[in-house]
Amino acid sequence: MALIVQKYGGTSVGSTEKIKNVAGRVIEYCEKGDMLVVVLSAMAGQTDDLIRLSKEITETPDPRELDVLMATGEQITISLFATAVKSMGYDCCSLLGFQAAIHTDEIYGKARIRKIDTDRILKELDEDRIVAVAGFQGIDESGNITTLGRGGSDTTAVALAAALKANLCEIFTDVDGVFSADPNICTHAKKLEQISYEEMLELSSLGAKVLDIRSVEFAKKFNVPIHVRSSFTRNEGTMVVAENKEMEKVLVSGVVFDKNEARVTIVKVPDRPGIASKIFNPVFKAGIVVDMIIQNTSAEGITDLTFTVTKANFDETMKLVREVAKEIDAEKVLGDQNISKVSIIGLGMRNHAGVASKMFETLSKENINISMISTSEIKISCVIEEKYTELAVRALHEAFGLGDEKKQN
Amino acid sequence: MALIVQKYGGTSVGSTEKIKNVAGRVIEYCEKGDMLVVVLSAMAGQTDDLIRLSKEITETPDPRELDVLMATGEQITISLFATAVKSMGYDCCSLLGFQAAIHTDEIYGKARIRKIDTDRILKELDEDRIVAVAGFQGIDESGNITTLGRGGSDTTAVALAAALKANLCEIFTDVDGVFSADPNICTHAKKLEQISYEEMLELSSLGAKVLDIRSVEFAKKFNVPIHVRSSFTRNEGTMVVAENKEMEKVLVSGVVFDKNEARVTIVKVPDRPGIASKIFNPVFKAGIVVDMIIQNTSAEGITDLTFTVTKANFDETMKLVREVAKEIDAEKVLGDQNISKVSIIGLGMRNHAGVASKMFETLSKENINISMISTSEIKISCVIEEKYTELAVRALHEAFGLGDEKKQN
Repeated sequence: MALIVQKYGGTSVGSTEKIKNVAGRVIEYCEKGDMLVVVLSAMAGQTDDLIRLSKEITETPDPRELDVLMATGEQITISLFATAVKSMGYDCCSLLGFQAAIHTDEIYGKARIRKIDTDRILKELDEDRIVAVAGFQGIDESGNITTLGRGGSDTTAVALAAALKANLCEIFTDVDGVFSADPNICTHAKKLEQISYEEMLELSSLGAKVLDIRSVEFAKKFNVPIHVRSSFTRNEGTMVVAENKEMEKVLVSGVVFDKNEARVTIVKVPDRPGIASKIFNPVFKAGIVVDMIIQNTSAEGITDLTFTVTKANFDETMKLVREVAKEIDAEKVLGDQNISKVSIIGLGMRNHAGVASKMFETLSKENINISMISTSEIKISCVIEEKYTELAVRALHEAFGLGDEKKQN
Repeated sequence: MALIVQKYGGTSVGSTEKIKNVAGRVIEYCEKGDMLVVVLSAMAGQTDDLIRLSKEITETPDPRELDVLMATGEQITISLFATAVKSMGYDCCSLLGFQAAIHTDEIYGKARIRKIDTDRILKELDEDRIVAVAGFQGIDESGNITTLGRGGSDTTAVALAAALKANLCEIFTDVDGVFSADPNICTHAKKLEQISYEEMLELSSLGAKVLDIRSVEFAKKFNVPIHVRSSFTRNEGTMVVAENKEMEKVLVSGVVFDKNEARVTIVKVPDRPGIASKIFNPVFKAGIVVDMIIQNTSAEGITDLTFTVTKANFDETMKLVREVAKEIDAEKVLGDQNISKVSIIGLGMRNHAGVASKMFETLSKENINISMISTSEIKISCVIEEKYTELAVRALHEAFGLGDEKKQN
C-alpha cells in the first residue's frame, strides 16, 4: 500500500466531464489499495476569467485581494472533484490551503511554502478518505490567503509529497512526459524514461513548461520521486529522480529552445568598478528578470555588455538602459527581439569533453551564427537568430543521437 | 462617528460596474467619518452558475462539498469590492467566513451562526480600513466551510452588527424598502417609514422577500436597528426597529400574499389520540415544512384535517399522505394547488377588535370565498382561490386605508 500524491493541471480538469474522468482514475488507485492525496488546479480558462473580472475593476489590482480572487479557481475544482468521487461511492474530503495548513510567507502572488502541518490530511487519510487539496494556494502567518504564482500547483503537490513522506508524486499533465525535444519540431523525439532533478531544473529554467522550477527544487531537496505523465493516456511518463549511474552514460538528454527572450547590447561601456551594478540596478528595481549576461574581456578600458530579458520586458528595459547609457557615457544601446536560445542538457557532459565543440560544429554546418554562449556544468545554451530555431533543434537532436529509433523507421 | 454594518445583495453587486458603484457609496460614508463593515452577496447569477456546475457532476451533490463550492461566490465579490475601494484610494480588507471568525454549527447548507470573534474585524477597523466580509458563509468547529442558506447574507450582516454592537445595520437591496403591499399590484402602495421586528417577522414568514426571517430574529434578539433601503437610489428606506408607541396607533401595516402554497385535505379522519402525529410524521421525516394546519372540531369521532405545504413539495406530500390515509382508514385525500394565502399584519390588531371581521367582510364583498383561516396576535391569514389574489390584496389595502394619498391623487 503506497501513499501517492497526484496533481492534475488545468487542462486535465477543464470541464465537469474531465473532472469525472479524473475522479474515476483516482478511484482505480484506491481500488489497488493506495492512499491518495490529489492536488488540483483551476479549470482551464477560469484563471483568465478571474483576471478579466479583476481588470474590469482596475488595471492595477491590490495583490492581497487578487490572491483572494484567484484562490476561488482551485476551490471550485476541489469541491467538484470531491463531489464526483463521492457520487461514485468513495469517500473524499476537499481541503483549501488554510485547511490543509499550507503555511507560506507573505509575498502575495508568489508566496513560498514555509511548512505544512499534515495533521488534518493524515486524519482524513486515516478515515479512508481521498483527500483533494487546492493547489496554488496557502495561508500566511496572519491568516491571509496567498497564492504561489503560475505553476504553483506543481509546488503544492511536491511539497505535500515531501511533508507526507509519500512514496511517489505523480504530475498529470497534457503531455506524455519529458521529451528529448519538442515533438512538434522533432517528429522522432523520444520520451525520456527518467531524468535527474538537475537536468529537469535546467529544462524548466530554459523554458520547458512541463514542471514548474520551484517544484523541482523542492523535489530535489527532499528527494521526492516525480512521475510526469499524461492524464489523457495510460502510458508511463518520465520519472524525475535523483541522479544515478545509468544517467551518466547518456551524454545529452535533450534539446530545448526558448523564443521568448530578447537581447540588449550596450556598446562601448567604460570598464570601471561598479559599472555593472549601475546598469542593472534600475532594471532589477523594475522587477525585470535578466537571464544571460555576457561581458567580454575589456580592451583599452572599453567593453561591450550584452544580456537577455523576456520579450515582454524588452521595451521597458531598452528605455531604462538608454537612460543609464547616457549617464555612463556608453556609445549606444542595441536591441534585438528576433533571437532564440537553443540549449542542450545532460548529466553526461560533466565527464565528457567535446560536447560543446560538437554543438558549435553542428550549428556551423547549418550556417547558423551563434551570438551568445552560456554554459553550466550540465547545459550549453546558444543564442541564435530566431528563424533558425527549428533547424537548430533538429540538427542538434540528430547530431547527439537523441531520436527514437522506432519512430525513425 | 458611527459604526455601520451594510449588506449589499446579489443584484446590487451584479456586475463589476455595480461593484464599483457600491464601493463609491461606501466611501461616502467613510468621508463622513463612519466606520464601515460591508457584507456582500455573490454576484447575481453566479450562485446559479455554480449550482449548474455541481449538477453536471451529480444531481445529489455532497452537502459539505456543495458549501465549499457555493462559498466561492461571495469570495469573488469581496475581493473585487476591496480591489475597487483600494483603487479609489481608501484602505480595505476582505475577510472570508473563517477569517472573520463566523462560527456556525455543522449543518451544511443551512448552518446557524453560533458566535463571532470580532478580534480580526476590530483590528482592521482600528487601522482605518473598510472591512468587506463574505456573506452567507461561516466555519464549523472542525474548520469546515459552511453556508447559511438562501438569504444568509442578511443574517451575516445582522449577526455582525450585533457582535460589533454597531449603531446601525443597513440592508441594501433592489427595492426601496418595505411597502404596505406589493407595488406591482397596488399602484399606490406606501413605503413604510418604520416597522416593528414582530411585524417584519410575520411579513418574512408570509413570503415577503425583503429580509430573511433569521436575520430579523437576530435583530430582534439583540435589538439591532435595521435600515432596509435601495442600493440604486438615495431614498430613505424602512427602519425595522423595536416596537414603539407610534406603531401601535396603526391598525394594519401591510397586506401580503403568497402564491407558493398548496393545500392537502384528508377527509373523514377517525379522531383518536395520536392520529395527527401518525399523519405528519412521514411528512416531517421527508424534510417537508408544513405551514397552516387546521382541524375542525370533531363530529361523531370523525374530522377533516387540512394543511398547506409549498407547491414544490405538493406531489411528494400527496403520495406520503395517501399511504397514511389508507392505514388510518380515512375516506380520501384531496389536493388543491390553485390557492393563495393573503394576510394582513399590524401591531395595532392586538388592542383593536373588529380587524378580522373587517377583513372577512371585505373579501366577502368581492365574492371571494375563504377556505382556511389562521391568526396570530398581529396577523390574519386567509387562504383563497389563487385567481382572486390581486383583487383581494387591492381590496384589503383600500379597506384598511393603507395607500399613499399622494399617489392616489
